[in-house]
Amino acid sequence: MTDRAANDTLRPASGAGRPGAVADQLFPAEPGVRAIARELYGHAKDLPLISPHGHVDPAILAEDLPFPDPARLIVVPDHYITRMLASQGVPPADLGVPSLDGTPVESDGRVIWRRLAEHWYLFRGTPSRLWTERVFREVFGVETPFGPATADLVYDAIAARLQEPEFRPRALFGRFNLEVLATTEGPLSDLSPHAKLAADGWGGPGGRVITTFRPDDLVDVEWPGWADRVRQLGSLTGRDVSSYAGFLDALRVRREAFLAAGATCSDHGHPTAHTGWVSDVDALYRAALGGSTERAEEFRGHMLMEFARMSTEDGLVMQLHPGADRNHNKALFARHGRDVGGDIPTATDYVRGLRPLLDEFGTDPRFRIVLYTLDETTFTRELAPLAGGYPAVFLGAPWWFLDSPEGLRRFRETVTETAGFYNTSGFVDDTRAFCSIPVRHDVARRIDAGFLARLVAEGRLPLDEAAETIADLAYHLPRKVFRLEKNS
Amino acid sequence: MTDRAANDTLRPASGAGRPGAVADQLFPAEPGVRAIARELYGHAKDLPLISPHGHVDPAILAEDLPFPDPARLIVVPDHYITRMLASQGVPPADLGVPSLDGTPVESDGRVIWRRLAEHWYLFRGTPSRLWTERVFREVFGVETPFGPATADLVYDAIAARLQEPEFRPRALFGRFNLEVLATTEGPLSDLSPHAKLAADGWGGPGGRVITTFRPDDLVDVEWPGWADRVRQLGSLTGRDVSSYAGFLDALRVRREAFLAAGATCSDHGHPTAHTGWVSDVDALYRAALGGSTERAEEFRGHMLMEFARMSTEDGLVMQLHPGADRNHNKALFARHGRDVGGDIPTATDYVRGLRPLLDEFGTDPRFRIVLYTLDETTFTRELAPLAGGYPAVFLGAPWWFLDSPEGLRRFRETVTETAGFYNTSGFVDDTRAFCSIPVRHDVARRIDAGFLARLVAEGRLPLDEAAETIADLAYHLPRKVFRLEKNS
Amino acid sequence: MTDRAANDTLRPASGAGRPGAVADQLFPAEPGVRAIARELYGHAKDLPLISPHGHVDPAILAEDLPFPDPARLIVVPDHYITRMLASQGVPPADLGVPSLDGTPVESDGRVIWRRLAEHWYLFRGTPSRLWTERVFREVFGVETPFGPATADLVYDAIAARLQEPEFRPRALFGRFNLEVLATTEGPLSDLSPHAKLAADGWGGPGGRVITTFRPDDLVDVEWPGWADRVRQLGSLTGRDVSSYAGFLDALRVRREAFLAAGATCSDHGHPTAHTGWVSDVDALYRAALGGSTERAEEFRGHMLMEFARMSTEDGLVMQLHPGADRNHNKALFARHGRDVGGDIPTATDYVRGLRPLLDEFGTDPRFRIVLYTLDETTFTRELAPLAGGYPAVFLGAPWWFLDSPEGLRRFRETVTETAGFYNTSGFVDDTRAFCSIPVRHDVARRIDAGFLARLVAEGRLPLDEAAETIADLAYHLPRKVFRLEKNS
Repeated sequence: MTDRAANDTLRPASGAGRPGAVADQLFPAEPGVRAIARELYGHAKDLPLISPHGHVDPAILAEDLPFPDPARLIVVPDHYITRMLASQGVPPADLGVPSLDGTPVESDGRVIWRRLAEHWYLFRGTPSRLWTERVFREVFGVETPFGPATADLVYDAIAARLQEPEFRPRALFGRFNLEVLATTEGPLSDLSPHAKLAADGWGGPGGRVITTFRPDDLVDVEWPGWADRVRQLGSLTGRDVSSYAGFLDALRVRREAFLAAGATCSDHGHPTAHTGWVSDVDALYRAALGGSTERAEEFRGHMLMEFARMSTEDGLVMQLHPGADRNHNKALFARHGRDVGGDIPTATDYVRGLRPLLDEFGTDPRFRIVLYTLDETTFTRELAPLAGGYPAVFLGAPWWFLDSPEGLRRFRETVTETAGFYNTSGFVDDTRAFCSIPVRHDVARRIDAGFLARLVAEGRLPLDEAAETIADLAYHLPRKVFRLEKNS
Repeated sequence: MTDRAANDTLRPASGAGRPGAVADQLFPAEPGVRAIARELYGHAKDLPLISPHGHVDPAILAEDLPFPDPARLIVVPDHYITRMLASQGVPPADLGVPSLDGTPVESDGRVIWRRLAEHWYLFRGTPSRLWTERVFREVFGVETPFGPATADLVYDAIAARLQEPEFRPRALFGRFNLEVLATTEGPLSDLSPHAKLAADGWGGPGGRVITTFRPDDLVDVEWPGWADRVRQLGSLTGRDVSSYAGFLDALRVRREAFLAAGATCSDHGHPTAHTGWVSDVDALYRAALGGSTERAEEFRGHMLMEFARMSTEDGLVMQLHPGADRNHNKALFARHGRDVGGDIPTATDYVRGLRPLLDEFGTDPRFRIVLYTLDETTFTRELAPLAGGYPAVFLGAPWWFLDSPEGLRRFRETVTETAGFYNTSGFVDDTRAFCSIPVRHDVARRIDAGFLARLVAEGRLPLDEAAETIADLAYHLPRKVFRLEKNS
Repeated sequence: MTDRAANDTLRPASGAGRPGAVADQLFPAEPGVRAIARELYGHAKDLPLISPHGHVDPAILAEDLPFPDPARLIVVPDHYITRMLASQGVPPADLGVPSLDGTPVESDGRVIWRRLAEHWYLFRGTPSRLWTERVFREVFGVETPFGPATADLVYDAIAARLQEPEFRPRALFGRFNLEVLATTEGPLSDLSPHAKLAADGWGGPGGRVITTFRPDDLVDVEWPGWADRVRQLGSLTGRDVSSYAGFLDALRVRREAFLAAGATCSDHGHPTAHTGWVSDVDALYRAALGGSTERAEEFRGHMLMEFARMSTEDGLVMQLHPGADRNHNKALFARHGRDVGGDIPTATDYVRGLRPLLDEFGTDPRFRIVLYTLDETTFTRELAPLAGGYPAVFLGAPWWFLDSPEGLRRFRETVTETAGFYNTSGFVDDTRAFCSIPVRHDVARRIDAGFLARLVAEGRLPLDEAAETIADLAYHLPRKVFRLEKNS
């Protein structure tokens, strides 16, 4: 703001309110409830972290090299951060986000870092602020408050830490008390980082670092290059993918490879929750190979049926993330491509969309599906009733824009009364920011503690059961829901 | 959870938080607000109960026989309970839910009861838990905390009570301080239990137990057996139902019978809120009799117009419950039929759907419609603006999945600022669980007390007006809205 | 209610809760959070008011005549008030709302006033109650609690004040600490009040009272009389409006006149958020002039593209208010016309609707659009992600039914985590009730103080930054977003 200086003499009355001071962070303010929350949190805070769904690059842990500079670690790959800066006129290129056509972008980490610091006030009240400042303090031990005046100081301190052996990925993995971390790969991935991890005793079935089967780019015929990727799938598996049957077989072959790399889950990011068999799927498939995208939505819905069927056979837990209008920001997409903050949520109909899938598999004891949403209106109206009715359905943690203190709180407030706690999946960090994992889980544990504390304070749940519940939510439930009980 | 035992040593720090301890249950935790809530609640808690909409079997009160065993009373007919257990793999058949084809289901009440107890942790944070534990304690005087270890103890204690004369339905009716209870019947019902009640001085116009006219199964041509039921309607009324005019006349005849059995309301459960006249309705009707279901939605919308018109003539208050996708769970429906927990809410458009009906009747002083929803998004966006604008429109209490502490609280928070308190209908328990009626009303009174207390604490409403308001919400308003002022 | 008298002996335990006692009004009840809120509010409460969007008649300030009687000032023009009374059976005609056909309506201000007083209990818990009682007390110095028994007393006291010179509009403008007030006019307005204001040193570019360009009645071909108005536009501008190019040119001419009258914004109230170029727009336009309304939605969407393009040229900030189903209440519309409380919100799709506009202008540094909604479900799902991603997009304050304590609170709770504070526009009173302006702004400042106080209390934001933020939200941000930095 123009006259920020006018307020420069303002100082906090005390240490209270400084995000660094996290002892009671995120707990309800009322002292009685806060005391209960603190006690409940004590039953969860030291439990190992289960990270069943995320986007950490497995090469990081396979190679265990030092992280790059602070800007490349914390700013460049984080679309929460780059989109907020873009929204106030700082182009992603000025933050080092790679361009599709190779146009040079900012390459000086320190310059990127200063740009972040200069606009740090934009993040007030956001989870990015919370996560980032706690990472500075708790992961890197940097207590200096972050801002324009201290940008270099913080940069240098973190950069120095990143050179130390205790800040290598595997060392941090141990320090974070991570029990198991699932990464996400497409069927065309050769999974070589996971092979290296297995060789080192870190990966494979039951391992500490495992993969997840994410076939979207082979299922979405509207995604440019689909037919080429299908051909690659054929080469990789030695299957004849000119027919739908061969395509399906090739996908099965890849699922086996993913199972061998420890996968316990598949993951599916679709524009909608539409499901349903297509009667002439071979014809549809061949037309798509010939370039037709007309029936893309039908094909995606059909493939969800197929993947559900495969899940009943091979036991992979299905995860569905529908409802993003991808690449909404045309200019951003043209310059920087996918997954850089241009996706916007849309209203999603789970009830009609999933009906065919649930009719066929919803009560099959071998099948399990975890549903995520960007559309909060579905929490009470659709998702809690579905999860509270079908044995196969679990509710995933609040996702993406909803993975935030208020989002997590509203999730429990809207879902619990119909689905209870035990039809939810436990927290999922869904992040590519490895260093933020412990903070994200801690935020979820604190919010759950606060919600449960309110139930206790309002005479709705005894304290002992609340304590048991928070431990279940933090640890036991995700292990069970995502079939990770052998991983440790 | 796998290591529940690990937490077995946990015990509540004190009695606080034990749901049994209800003195301040559901009041806001902040001591100042809680004190106000307690005072306001005092103005409502002893007022008689008005139950203008529910599904208690009138035969229960007509015959006044002892209730069956605890499982048949509390578990088997409660789809909140059976669906939650189904969601975690306990099939409804194992809980005694009758099968359509006569396949045997669990018949041992004690076995069913133990299955509930074993899974009781699933209900943490749900209204079912709250209602049930308070029914044990307050209706049956059983203080033992319910759980796997105490299942038989609680079962035996309740079973013993059920043999005592003070636990017969009519005795409980008196103890519950019920002033009037409306049941719900279809037009084909012979209303004989209501005749018996009238003969005993309990029923008929102005009586303590009255009926409600619910014609859905004669209006929804997609409901299997519709044409047969229409023919039954013809027989019952002596009208020629081969034409639409005769059908309409027959419905009018049944409304008269319902009025004679004390009805003050009709009730309509439709998939959507669509309304509108059909110009060629006789042709549509005859086609439907011939088996066509093509224009089912049009016919339902047309019939809502007809029923609104009839309401202007005979004074029945119309209630509309739209927005459930019925029988979503195909396997459940095939095995156990309707109304056993398989319905899922969907997004509902009241604004466009109701426009024809409100254009014609919305400002007619003889007409009144009470709107319910399963789609909370409509509270601020559609329902509060409609109720706060049309003289004929009132907002029904949060329904079904929303009849819960958080649901009731959000209802007041989202509706009041646009519709005020006096365009809402007061609480409606909508239950078939007779013994839970006082607890459900008490929950609503407590939540209203808490909401009003916050308004007082934030300087938005004087205490004396808040006290008057809570008494109105609990008692005076439903008597007036549902035209029950002569029933007592 | 029937036995209101029964509660007549109830009196508030203390002054607390009486809306008049506003010292801590609307602050969270928890004493620790309340203390922080009070401190934060102190940083905002005396800042000048920025009113960038409203519907005050500019003639009031141009002519500076005494206001009419209290009923004509406070009841007759306020559709929040008249619709609530209508919802309980008091026809608008009985409240003096003018009829379209000249049928006489109630003309005695005192009678209207008594009708309001008699039904004042209907407004419990509504913002209308809060605003009105504070206007009585703070603007007119009337401390008597308002109600049936005191109606005349309050009426007389206000009527007396209205005769005093200090209660003339310009005097109040000064007392209200208003820095700038934007009114709203259609392109056909001759802007003569603004000319008078400019002549008096109150108006024109950078002035205290400015206009806003609102072209809806020239853009919505479904609005009766459209072609006539287009012809008037031709006359007023001397342009040949028989072709689309001429029409566009004429609109540009009017925008220049509005700029000369100080406008910094345009405003657009559309049924949906649809945007998109029409390729054969001249043909569409000519057909519409010939009476066709078939492609009305297309034309509205096209014109939003045109206005966005014009904004990039002349710098007017675009405001979009979509999602009202206009004139829903047919009887009301027939008797009293538009804008008397008959509009009802509907679900709105911003993501798909705005895509064409944002594709073309969303990252253009010359363009700015402020989005409003009546559909709260879009706050987390659509609007915060759009505002937090596109440089051109800002989120307007909660609008209409959502401009209320709970609405404002939910806005911050749902929007902040994704869009931050600095992609919102600051408060907009949107009112025609001149005397209520300071109260409305004060309510927003109090709610923001309460929200920020919770962030501080939960360790999510330091106190000094919260203090800076509230001053930004109250003053600095709206000045910047609406380009009012030269107005003071």
